[in-house]
Amino acid sequence: MTAQRVIVIGGGAAGMSAAAKAKRTNPTIDIVVYERSGYVSYGACGFPYAIKGEIARVEDVVVRTPAQFAQQGIQALIHHEVLAIDTARQRVLVRDLHTGREFTDHWDELVVTTGGQPARPPLPGLDLPGVFGLRSVEEAIAIKTWIGEQRPQAGVIIGGGYIGLEMAEALDAHGIALTLIERLPHVLPAFDPEMAAQVEEELRRQRVDVRLGQAVQAIVGDERVRGVIVDGQTIPAEIVILAAGVKPNVGLVRETGIALGPTGAIAVDDHQRTNVPRVWAAGDVAEVYHRVTGKPAWIPLGTTANKQGRVAGENLAGGNARFGGVVGTTVVKVFEREVAISGLSLTRAKAEGFDAVSVSATASSRAHYMPGHQPLTVTLVFDRATRRLLGGQLIGREGVAKRVDTVAAALQAGWTIDEFAELDLSYAPPFAPVWDPLLVAANLARR
Amino acid sequence: MTAQRVIVIGGGAAGMSAAAKAKRTNPTIDIVVYERSGYVSYGACGFPYAIKGEIARVEDVVVRTPAQFAQQGIQALIHHEVLAIDTARQRVLVRDLHTGREFTDHWDELVVTTGGQPARPPLPGLDLPGVFGLRSVEEAIAIKTWIGEQRPQAGVIIGGGYIGLEMAEALDAHGIALTLIERLPHVLPAFDPEMAAQVEEELRRQRVDVRLGQAVQAIVGDERVRGVIVDGQTIPAEIVILAAGVKPNVGLVRETGIALGPTGAIAVDDHQRTNVPRVWAAGDVAEVYHRVTGKPAWIPLGTTANKQGRVAGENLAGGNARFGGVVGTTVVKVFEREVAISGLSLTRAKAEGFDAVSVSATASSRAHYMPGHQPLTVTLVFDRATRRLLGGQLIGREGVAKRVDTVAAALQAGWTIDEFAELDLSYAPPFAPVWDPLLVAANLARR
Repeated sequence: MTAQRVIVIGGGAAGMSAAAKAKRTNPTIDIVVYERSGYVSYGACGFPYAIKGEIARVEDVVVRTPAQFAQQGIQALIHHEVLAIDTARQRVLVRDLHTGREFTDHWDELVVTTGGQPARPPLPGLDLPGVFGLRSVEEAIAIKTWIGEQRPQAGVIIGGGYIGLEMAEALDAHGIALTLIERLPHVLPAFDPEMAAQVEEELRRQRVDVRLGQAVQAIVGDERVRGVIVDGQTIPAEIVILAAGVKPNVGLVRETGIALGPTGAIAVDDHQRTNVPRVWAAGDVAEVYHRVTGKPAWIPLGTTANKQGRVAGENLAGGNARFGGVVGTTVVKVFEREVAISGLSLTRAKAEGFDAVSVSATASSRAHYMPGHQPLTVTLVFDRATRRLLGGQLIGREGVAKRVDTVAAALQAGWTIDEFAELDLSYAPPFAPVWDPLLVAANLARR
Repeated sequence: MTAQRVIVIGGGAAGMSAAAKAKRTNPTIDIVVYERSGYVSYGACGFPYAIKGEIARVEDVVVRTPAQFAQQGIQALIHHEVLAIDTARQRVLVRDLHTGREFTDHWDELVVTTGGQPARPPLPGLDLPGVFGLRSVEEAIAIKTWIGEQRPQAGVIIGGGYIGLEMAEALDAHGIALTLIERLPHVLPAFDPEMAAQVEEELRRQRVDVRLGQAVQAIVGDERVRGVIVDGQTIPAEIVILAAGVKPNVGLVRETGIALGPTGAIAVDDHQRTNVPRVWAAGDVAEVYHRVTGKPAWIPLGTTANKQGRVAGENLAGGNARFGGVVGTTVVKVFEREVAISGLSLTRAKAEGFDAVSVSATASSRAHYMPGHQPLTVTLVFDRATRRLLGGQLIGREGVAKRVDTVAAALQAGWTIDEFAELDLSYAPPFAPVWDPLLVAANLARR
């Protein structure tokens, strides 16, 4: 009997987690990972900090190299692109991007972890030198090189989501005068407008020209980018970051029989199984169960990718792991502000059909008499009739990221806002006031 | 019909919360607060920071003055000591400490919030000038004045609990060479020895002479303190802080019919009622329901005092508020370490009869490639058979205080450690690694 063969398509967080967990669960398994780029096992979330210069080298965000995986008995082949999946014959067509050679490979178990891909709006000039997306280590290096060599004075960021905001901080650190263009009426679409407004205020305080509700018509230039046309006006730019959203990278699974869910990402069950036997999916290409809405969602995040990959890897190797889903927790640093959400914004809760209301409170991050205390705004969203907590949003200069985790726990527990208000939260003057901002907001909801 | 009269004994956090909430709930109520010291409504937790000098004036920890309470229609009488409670006649005997005048006052509702008092071991020399406790604003001012005027070179702190440790940092900031003496084998008795060891290491790193398992025999001096005798050896000291624990200040309720619970503090139900009708208790003098053990506990903390006071105030004014209890969350800063606990240590869990086990993991506070990341140790305690989470302890240089709140939420939810491991915690490189240290520890428990 030959060893069971596992093929993993995509060597990002999900793929390498799946491979590593499968090998640990059953060391006899034969695993190959095909990765199109030159790197596996990297945290794309670190790119903005590498470009900013807080991390010395972009490559430092790589967790492990193919050589390190080889020592674990996992073959990670970079510069190998999977061109097609044949679910009937259980094989993939692969191209070695260096040699151009194409070959087929047979699987017993297949893991699809092709990730997300940047939305590319149909804009003239997208391919001009100086216009960058930010998904791969290579793109991050290219941006850093461009900044070092071209010394751009002005830049445009297209998109006010997480990556756009983090890149604003990164480019600003190089003295680049920035314009940030967001098609929607506010940045951070997952948040309510009042919370987003505090982020916009911070961006403007940092001299970023924030343009909301405006669409890019074209990117212009000659041998390189020279500007961006927005509402008929040309904004000069020697660097343009395209951060206009991400979508699941599902091109490869079309017409394979692997079903997509309502979000357009691959539908999976709580074991990371797709509808096709012995085909698993995980990470940014897959849907995730949202515990608050009770529906599938598409929320591409490194944490979820790691967890889903691990579950897929354990199960394909004979285990019985379950991924319980997410509550939609994210945090982002925008210059001197920390912004976090867990669960649903008021806007989103209403769109999901909840009779939702919200309360907002601004309280101190530490005891009022302690130096360094900062205002921290908490918005809690809950259902009017059942009083079930539906979400929480936090913004402030400190103490935001890990405070939102308490909201995440409450959402997972399915608490009412009254149960939330009973929390026994930590208190000491350097870290919190006697009434933590979370409880100040919850108390408001009880009035 | 005359207005309902409420008497509150003690103007600390619990008493003033009760008074304020009662008045808001029913503005026709006539409320008087008798406070022995010269201040009401202060956070004693701030004293070490005031003594250290981080807060300009000790008085800055006062939230509101009697004059401010008067504007709310609450009479707060400082320098008024309640000498006796007569529950049969519903009256108290009060002494005006300035004039010496004694008078009785009648209540319709009585709130006992007499707080805690420092344990005073029967030591010779306790009353020498330069030996201080730390419960009142006056004592905090006295310490600060003593340091300013006497410029002590050496100091001894008796007791390695929260106050002792915070005072070590405070006195060290004045260049005082310190010896900290703890009777027990490790500091922070609520924690397991391995976690306490990291605190002891930090203290020693800061050149504090930590003496464990040693008892003070006497405090010596002449017109002022000169030293402390420990195990036959005299340790020179020009200042001594007595932080050898606190006990409920129940002297006043003895022989009143107001019942104490098994912990020695006043027994209360979830409405803050004592066994005597129309007599309420809250704060450090009262017990609290511990959600993890399901038993009454005595855990004197400012947060609990505020919550219990508010519940008592609302209920005595005709409301129907309930205090759900605590899970035993505390955090303390010790020089450059943050140390937190929620729930039970392994030692305590076993003492409570649980078949408890623990896992410990040390992971990074931020993404491994981010500058400033620090090791953070998490210990999770759970029941072997039911896998119920029983407690969590955290220590590190950053990100501890609010991370423990997630443990607090999980304990309130009554989760198993496996449910805890499913948490969707916030992730961004500046704030956490992809696998938060809490999840790294939880994953260990799942192996």
